[in-house]
Amino acid sequence: MKTYIPFSPENPKTRLDPLLDADERVEFVYACLDDVTAAVSEAGGDATVLSTEPLDGFDAVVRDEALTPAVNVVLDDETPPVAVVVADLPLVTPDALRRLYASDAGFVVAPGRGGGTNAFVARDGRFRVDYHGTSFADHAEKARELGCDVHVVDSFRLSTDVDEPQDLVEILLHGEGRAADFVRQRFELVEDDEDRVGVRRLDRQE
Amino acid sequence: MKTYIPFSPENPKTRLDPLLDADERVEFVYACLDDVTAAVSEAGGDATVLSTEPLDGFDAVVRDEALTPAVNVVLDDETPPVAVVVADLPLVTPDALRRLYASDAGFVVAPGRGGGTNAFVARDGRFRVDYHGTSFADHAEKARELGCDVHVVDSFRLSTDVDEPQDLVEILLHGEGRAADFVRQRFELVEDDEDRVGVRRLDRQE
Repeated sequence: MKTYIPFSPENPKTRLDPLLDADERVEFVYACLDDVTAAVSEAGGDATVLSTEPLDGFDAVVRDEALTPAVNVVLDDETPPVAVVVADLPLVTPDALRRLYASDAGFVVAPGRGGGTNAFVARDGRFRVDYHGTSFADHAEKARELGCDVHVVDSFRLSTDVDEPQDLVEILLHGEGRAADFVRQRFELVEDDEDRVGVRRLDRQE
Repeated sequence: MKTYIPFSPENPKTRLDPLLDADERVEFVYACLDDVTAAVSEAGGDATVLSTEPLDGFDAVVRDEALTPAVNVVLDDETPPVAVVVADLPLVTPDALRRLYASDAGFVVAPGRGGGTNAFVARDGRFRVDYHGTSFADHAEKARELGCDVHVVDSFRLSTDVDEPQDLVEILLHGEGRAADFVRQRFELVEDDEDRVGVRRLDRQE
């Protein structure tokens, strides 16, 4: 299935700034992109990176726009079904994406933690996106208004995008790819007295 | 399948203290317990609540002990397979638990966010638990040492336990049961300028 992966390497992941400098944050999102494109291909998808600028090491369709209009141009142009998978899914696996591809519902969607839309398949050519914090519920509702049956993929791996330092915990615990290598080279898990788990940089005194 | 649900209503969920008073936190964990026992039964499981004290409205095996020894007594006594599902899973659904029950692996496990062990099925009578912050990886390793194949259930719903105020966001977005009713009566979603989503009490000025 044609699968678009929107990507922007311009000053990414600013909420990780306390833990990763600007160059590292760029390196990290490239590592995530590598994991996602590899998992899409291994799951039988046909991956196209949709980037805001030309990329090192990846073929990409370049469209210097915000996420929502860039994806909507794709949805305008492509013949359904079309899948869109965000690039910052460091726990993605081929098995998780196979579950996205396996449903034949009119709209198949994997929510992110916090209500985002981390991955979807649209089978109605009229479907358009409007990404924002809690876009998942809005996208499902729009699809239903178009007459689509909606299938929600219940996946921890697809729900885990990376915005906050706390999200790095999940990569250390469950990651398997290049993004996990990147994080393991720099961080270790720490547990406090109340069983709360966090991360600590290996190369910084705190 | 015999399914134990450990539960303790004594001063629960203290990290929700800024948002819910002591009585409300007790009411909330009872609502979660109701959702979990109902989902276990609907998924074909045989639910037994394993409580630190006698309960209002639920039959329970009472064992006034910490979580780890209480569950280990069950694992000592029962004939495998035995499932253990924590009580604070407000997004639990029968479908999610069916995926736990469906695998015939020697150890089937659903990790929680932060590395906990939110649900498992043990088919080796020698398996014992040691709950702590990142117990998931330790439990999987112990099961492998016993010769069990390990199957990880990739479920956002089973990964979502409730510890922090931020976890209430997921209940508002995806919850369907009594715990969700409880939260919806008291909270609404709020989004900030950076698309971060949080909760606000409906009955408090902030």
